[in-house]
Amino acid sequence: MASVSVSIRKSGSVQLQSMSSLHFILLIPLFCFISNISSVQSRINVWPKPRNLSWLHPQATLLSPSFRIISPKHRYLTPAVDRYRHLVLSERHRSIVSPVVNLTFTHPLQAVKLTVTDLKTPLQHGVDESYTLTIPTVGAANLTARTVWGAMRGLETFSQLVWGDPPCVPTGLSIYDSPIFGHRGVMLDTSRNYYGVEHILRTIRAMSANKLNVFHWHITDSHSFPLVLPSEPELARKGSYGPDMQYSPADVKRIVEYGFRHGVRVLPEIDAPGHTGSWVEAYPEIVTCANMFWWPDGTDWADRFASEPGTGHLNPLNPKTYEVLHNVIHDVASLFPEPFYHAGADEIIPGCWRADKKIQAFLSNGGTLSQLLETFINSTFPFIVSLNRTVVYWEDVLLDDNVKVNPSILSPEKTILHTWNNGPNNTKRIVSAGYRVVVSSSDFYYLDCGHGNFLGNDSRFDRQISDEPGKPFNYDGGEGGSWCGPFKTWQRIYDYDITYGLTEEEARLVLGGEVALWSEQADPTVLDARIWPRASAMAETLWSGNRDETGKKRYAEATDRLNEWRYRMVSRGIGAEPMQPLWCVTHPGMCNMVQ
Amino acid sequence: MASVSVSIRKSGSVQLQSMSSLHFILLIPLFCFISNISSVQSRINVWPKPRNLSWLHPQATLLSPSFRIISPKHRYLTPAVDRYRHLVLSERHRSIVSPVVNLTFTHPLQAVKLTVTDLKTPLQHGVDESYTLTIPTVGAANLTARTVWGAMRGLETFSQLVWGDPPCVPTGLSIYDSPIFGHRGVMLDTSRNYYGVEHILRTIRAMSANKLNVFHWHITDSHSFPLVLPSEPELARKGSYGPDMQYSPADVKRIVEYGFRHGVRVLPEIDAPGHTGSWVEAYPEIVTCANMFWWPDGTDWADRFASEPGTGHLNPLNPKTYEVLHNVIHDVASLFPEPFYHAGADEIIPGCWRADKKIQAFLSNGGTLSQLLETFINSTFPFIVSLNRTVVYWEDVLLDDNVKVNPSILSPEKTILHTWNNGPNNTKRIVSAGYRVVVSSSDFYYLDCGHGNFLGNDSRFDRQISDEPGKPFNYDGGEGGSWCGPFKTWQRIYDYDITYGLTEEEARLVLGGEVALWSEQADPTVLDARIWPRASAMAETLWSGNRDETGKKRYAEATDRLNEWRYRMVSRGIGAEPMQPLWCVTHPGMCNMVQ
Repeated sequence: MASVSVSIRKSGSVQLQSMSSLHFILLIPLFCFISNISSVQSRINVWPKPRNLSWLHPQATLLSPSFRIISPKHRYLTPAVDRYRHLVLSERHRSIVSPVVNLTFTHPLQAVKLTVTDLKTPLQHGVDESYTLTIPTVGAANLTARTVWGAMRGLETFSQLVWGDPPCVPTGLSIYDSPIFGHRGVMLDTSRNYYGVEHILRTIRAMSANKLNVFHWHITDSHSFPLVLPSEPELARKGSYGPDMQYSPADVKRIVEYGFRHGVRVLPEIDAPGHTGSWVEAYPEIVTCANMFWWPDGTDWADRFASEPGTGHLNPLNPKTYEVLHNVIHDVASLFPEPFYHAGADEIIPGCWRADKKIQAFLSNGGTLSQLLETFINSTFPFIVSLNRTVVYWEDVLLDDNVKVNPSILSPEKTILHTWNNGPNNTKRIVSAGYRVVVSSSDFYYLDCGHGNFLGNDSRFDRQISDEPGKPFNYDGGEGGSWCGPFKTWQRIYDYDITYGLTEEEARLVLGGEVALWSEQADPTVLDARIWPRASAMAETLWSGNRDETGKKRYAEATDRLNEWRYRMVSRGIGAEPMQPLWCVTHPGMCNMVQ
Repeated sequence: MASVSVSIRKSGSVQLQSMSSLHFILLIPLFCFISNISSVQSRINVWPKPRNLSWLHPQATLLSPSFRIISPKHRYLTPAVDRYRHLVLSERHRSIVSPVVNLTFTHPLQAVKLTVTDLKTPLQHGVDESYTLTIPTVGAANLTARTVWGAMRGLETFSQLVWGDPPCVPTGLSIYDSPIFGHRGVMLDTSRNYYGVEHILRTIRAMSANKLNVFHWHITDSHSFPLVLPSEPELARKGSYGPDMQYSPADVKRIVEYGFRHGVRVLPEIDAPGHTGSWVEAYPEIVTCANMFWWPDGTDWADRFASEPGTGHLNPLNPKTYEVLHNVIHDVASLFPEPFYHAGADEIIPGCWRADKKIQAFLSNGGTLSQLLETFINSTFPFIVSLNRTVVYWEDVLLDDNVKVNPSILSPEKTILHTWNNGPNNTKRIVSAGYRVVVSSSDFYYLDCGHGNFLGNDSRFDRQISDEPGKPFNYDGGEGGSWCGPFKTWQRIYDYDITYGLTEEEARLVLGGEVALWSEQADPTVLDARIWPRASAMAETLWSGNRDETGKKRYAEATDRLNEWRYRMVSRGIGAEPMQPLWCVTHPGMCNMVQ
C-alpha cells in the first residue's frame, strides 16, 4: 500500500517523512491536511466525543468524488443522508491543528453503507440513538443503527471525521456510540424578544451537529404571544409584537419538520398561569394584574406583581380562562406531535393574584394561593394528559415556597419536573419524591446570566469607585450584575454532573438536561454566540460524560477539542463565540491554568 | 398651513386628531410615523443627546424626494455628504415608539445648506467639532460648523432626526452642539484574535454614528503580529496567524481613509516591550521568555512569565531590538498620519526579563528592572517624538509596582498616559503629576469583562454546588469569573464620571476616554454585540454628559432613548445587543427599577 506520513509546518509547506509516494502528492494541488496555521500533532476530533472509538493505527484515505451513502428510504432519514453527503463532499474543513496520519491514496472511500434495523420507531424520549461506524482500510464503511435517529447521530459523526481539501477520512477506525442521557436540550425564549424562523432552524441544525435532541421552545410569556393558533387567533394578533413577529401554523410545521429531519424534538411550552401578561391584549378578563408597574416604589419585594417586568397571571377563578386555555392546549397539541407538553407553572407571584377582587374574596374566605394553583392544575393537567401528552412543569409547581400544589394531584407517570433553582438540591428533592426530572440548574445551565441587570433606572450602577476585594460589586444576590451571575463559562457547564448527590436509583429518574436562553438581553443579534459553544459543552457531558477512562474530569483535554469544534461550527455558519485567542488553539495546552 | 396631529395605536391604525388634512394622508400609502408596535408618545431621538436642542412646537414635514445637501467640496466631507444624503433618503427608519408631531405637507424640506468656516483644519485631538443646525418650518435647513469634522457631527445628527416612510423631518428645531471631551474612543485588540478589514470599517462607521472619534487600534501583541510593515515584513509573515489574517499597507490606507471620511482618527498601538511574544517568530534573538508556558506549575504568581498566555518581552539590552523597533515605528508613523502614537509599555512581567541570561547578569551586577525599562524608553521615546508624534503609554510605565520609569524621562508636553487600573484613583495620580490622561478604567470601560476566565483546565469551575449568598463564586478577584468582572452594563458605563475626584485644574488634563475590547474571548462573531450599545453609553457621557438640566443623572430617561438608538443601529447593519425585551422598549419606563 502506498502511504506517506505527513506533518505540516507553520509556513504551510508539507514535510514528507517517507518519500515513497511523492508522486501521489504532486498530483493533488490542494491537500486535505494543508493548514496555514497548524503546527502541532493532534487527533481527529468528533464533538461530542464518542463513547468508544478505536483507531489503533492512524491512517486516512481520500473521500472519493463519487462518494455515496447507501441508505434505506425514509421520510426523515433520506433528507439527512442527502444533506450529509453534500456536507462531506463540500465542507473542505481546514483543521486548526491538522491530524498527522498515514495517508493512503490507493483506496479512496467510495461509500458508507447505512443499515437501520427499525425504520418505524418515532422520535421521542428514550428512543435508541446508538450507532456503530466502521471505516476499514479497504472497502465501504458501515454505519449501523437501530433507529433512523441513531443513524443521524452516526452520520454526524462521520461528517466530523472528514477534513481537508480534497476531503480525507480516517480508516481503520471503529466507533460504538450511544448517549448517557436521553434528554439533551436547548431552551429558547421567543417571547421577551422575537427570533425569526430562520434563526430557530439554524439553532436546530447546530443542535443536531452537537447531537442535542430537544429544542424546548418557550414560545409565550408576559411580553409577547407570537404563536398564531387557529382556535385563538386573537392571542397572537393582539399579543404579539406585530404581524412580522409571529409564528404561523405553517412556520411551526416547517420547524417541526426540520426538527425531525435533524433528529431534534420540538417541545413546546405555553407557560401558565404565570407569565401570561401578553394574553391580556386579547382577553383582558382572564388576566390579573396585567400591565402594572412590576414593583411599585415603596412596597416590599414580597408585594411585587411580577419577578420582573411585565406583569400578568391567568385568573384561575374565571371559567373563561379554561375555555381559552383548552383551545390553546388543543391547538398546540395539534401543531406539535412531540409527546411531551411543557406547561410552565413557574413563578406564581402572590401580589399578582391578590390584585384581583374575586381572588381577594376567595382569600378572605379562607382560601389559599396554593388552592388557587391546584384549581388551575386540576382544570388543565387532566386535559393535557387526555391528549396523550406527558406534562412537563417547572419545579415551582411542587417546590415554590408560597404557592405549590399537593403532589397527589400530579401522577409521576404523567409528570416530569424541570429543575432550575438551588443547584443540585432541587433535583434531589424532585427525584426523591419519585418524579422524573429534566435539569436546567440556573447555577450551571442558564446561558443568559452574567450580562448585568437589564432593568432601567438602576441607581446601583451609579458608583464611581472600584470594587473592593472581598466586597464584590454584587447585584441581586449574584455576581456579574445579574441574579444568576456570574456568566456560566463552557467549563462551568462542562463540569456539572446533573446527578450529583443522587443515589443510583434516584439518578435513573434524571432524563437529562437543557441549557436555557432567556431573552431579556438576547435576540437574533447574539443568539448563536450566547448558545454556542457553551451548549456544546453540555452536549458532550450528557452524551459521553466529562471524564476520561480513569474517571478524571477531562476538561483540560476538552479545551483543545472544543476549540477545534468551535471553529468548525463557525465554518458551518454557526456564530459560536471564541473561547480563547487563536494562539491558544494553535498551541494546545499552553493556555491552561496548569499544564 | 395644512397640518394634522397624529398618534398611533398598537394595531397600526392611524388616529387622526384633526381631520382637516385627511386627503393628504390618503395620498401617501406608507407614512413616516407608521409603526406596528408603537403606542406611546415620545420625542425625537438623537444619540448622543445634543447639548442644546430647542423644538418648542413639535412639528415635522416630509423630506423632499429631491432633497439635497448643499456643501463645499472637500476630500473627506464630500463623501460624507453623499453618504448622508443617501442615508436620509433611503433609511426609512421605523421608530419603535413613534414621535407624535404636527405634520405639515405644504413645505417638504428641500435642502440642508452646509457652511464650514475652515476647510483646512486636520482631524486631530482638540479639533473643533461643534455645529449648529436649524430646520425652519419653511425653507432650507442650515448646518454650520467651524470644521469639516464638526460638519460631519451635524450631518449625523440630521440623519437621526429623519424617520419614517416616506421620510419625515422635524421643523422649527434648532441645535447647538459640541463635545465635552475631545478624545472619545474605542480600543480594539486585533492580535489575540483577528478581525477582517470589513469588521474594522463597520466599527468605524458605527463609531461615527455615535460621534466617537478615536479608533485606538491595538494592532499587535504576544499572540499575533498581523501588520505587514514594508521595512520589517518578516514580523507579519512569520508572526501573524497566516497570510489571510494580516493587514497590508493597502488595508491600513483604506482604514485610515475610511476613518477620515467618518471623522474618526485611527490611532495605532504597537505594544512594547511587553506583549511582544509574536515578534519571536521573525526575531528570536530580541525576545525574552518567548513561547514558555505562562505560569509554570508550582511557582508563585510573582514568578510567572506573563500576565496571561502567551509569553514574550522585547530584550532592552539587545541593540537589535531597537534596530527592528525603529523600523517598526518609522513604518507605522508613515502608515498612520495620526499625531498620537500609542507605544503600550504595560505589564512588564519581571519573570520574563529575568529568564534572559544577559538580563540576569545585568541584575546580578546591581541593575534593576526599572532601569531596563528606562533604557528601553530612552531608546524609543525620543525617536517617536522625533517623528512629530505625541506618545501615549499605558499608566504602568509610571505607576507599576515593580517596573516603572522616572517621570523625568517623559515630558508632559509629549506624553499622554492611558489609565486602566484602580478605578478613578490612577487617573488622579497621573493628572496630579501634570500629565494628560485618557481613561479606560477596567472597572467601567473594559468591554471584555465578565465572560469568565478564558484559561483552559481551570479546576475552579468543577464545582457541583450552588453559590452561597454572601460567598460569591469568585474567580481571580473579580466576579463574572474574570479578573475584571462583573460585566460592565451600559448603565455602569453611562454613569461613570471620568473626572471623578479631580480638581477643576486636574480635570482639564483629562482628554477623554475609551472603551476597550480585549480579544481573549472576542472575534468577529461577537464584535458588534460586545461593543454596541455599551460604547454608545460612553459616547453620550463624553459628548454631552450623563446629567439632565437639574444636574441629576439621567440614566432612567436614557434607557428609553438608548433602546431606540440600539434598534436604529441594528437597522443600519450594526449588530448591537439588545438591552431589554422589546416589550420594555414599547412600554417606556415600565422596566425600570423604580419609576
